[in-house]
Amino acid sequence: MNTFLDHQNWRYATKKFDATKKISNEDLNILKEAIRLSSSSYGLQPYKVIIVENPELRAKIRPSAWGQSQIVEASHLIIFANEINFGTTGIDNYFKNTSETRQIPLESMKGYQELVIKNITSLSEEMRNIWTAKQTYLALGNLLNAAAELKIDATPMEGFVPSEVNEILGLDKLGLNATLIATIGYRHEEDATQHNKKVRKSNEELFITL
Amino acid sequence: MNTFLDHQNWRYATKKFDATKKISNEDLNILKEAIRLSSSSYGLQPYKVIIVENPELRAKIRPSAWGQSQIVEASHLIIFANEINFGTTGIDNYFKNTSETRQIPLESMKGYQELVIKNITSLSEEMRNIWTAKQTYLALGNLLNAAAELKIDATPMEGFVPSEVNEILGLDKLGLNATLIATIGYRHEEDATQHNKKVRKSNEELFITL
Repeated sequence: MNTFLDHQNWRYATKKFDATKKISNEDLNILKEAIRLSSSSYGLQPYKVIIVENPELRAKIRPSAWGQSQIVEASHLIIFANEINFGTTGIDNYFKNTSETRQIPLESMKGYQELVIKNITSLSEEMRNIWTAKQTYLALGNLLNAAAELKIDATPMEGFVPSEVNEILGLDKLGLNATLIATIGYRHEEDATQHNKKVRKSNEELFITL
Repeated sequence: MNTFLDHQNWRYATKKFDATKKISNEDLNILKEAIRLSSSSYGLQPYKVIIVENPELRAKIRPSAWGQSQIVEASHLIIFANEINFGTTGIDNYFKNTSETRQIPLESMKGYQELVIKNITSLSEEMRNIWTAKQTYLALGNLLNAAAELKIDATPMEGFVPSEVNEILGLDKLGLNATLIATIGYRHEEDATQHNKKVRKSNEELFITL
């Protein structure tokens, strides 16, 4: 058996967290690093990740997320928010970062930089917003997988009202839009759903080999 | 150091594969299982995953993917394709599967099933297509992470013309649309990009703590 698969089989979308158990700072730093190292289109990471520790803010968010208890009972609430109207500035920042990280002149990447700017700015704002939102799913995946390896439970959620969460956290003023929530922590022993068998499509339904 | 992070730091978007090295059937089965166990919205997995082994098909796809050599030189070509106009049938299949997997009567989930159908069919077809496309990014993430653990290289790609790939593989006739490509295999020792430092936003740029 493979360890990645072991972790996948161990994890489940936790319905009830043990509110008394907190993720250590050391583990939280590993989870943040897993998010930070995530792949993204061109490596641009066109999003921010908000870690909400404040209990009052979490209580305010709960009604905007179908009242789900995980929002307030999990150890940490993580919100992925894509950048709205992502464009030249974000791309220029990426190339500056590349130049500094790899110690190569910015000018040597000029042709490639212009190509990336052309590819992205030729999309409508709506298409760019959809594209940046998609990238947050890769970052969420890294969080889920890294958490499972640490035996930290996680519940990914699309079921919330982005406009309300944006307003509660002031994300709209930062040019951000909440796309995904992950609550992370430790399953409550009384969460009966942890014993459910995982439901997945069969290989025959999911894969086509050509 | 954490093993998940070790694997993340080891991986990179491989530019040149060693065409002589093939992924074993055993490892390919682990990668398929990692994809199959991926999280998705409501667990619906509204996509299919196409594994293209046929060299002629891969040669045909290459011009539709900016001519990138990985399409033909990697060990395997994996294409993620979301279901177009996903709706009641796909949801009903999920609940049938849940009933069989967990040995619980379909009727006992009727209220929840109706809620899921209402939530999803109330979206426009365009919104549903965007939503199913997003789910493929989670599945891709699982593939990338499982591959890295096995020291199998992978290159995720958005840079291709979906309509052309759909036509080459007959995906449109199956109600599918290619959203993502991953080429997987083993890096060529001459691929100089493997020595590049990884470029990522700093914690300060990426995270907001509230």
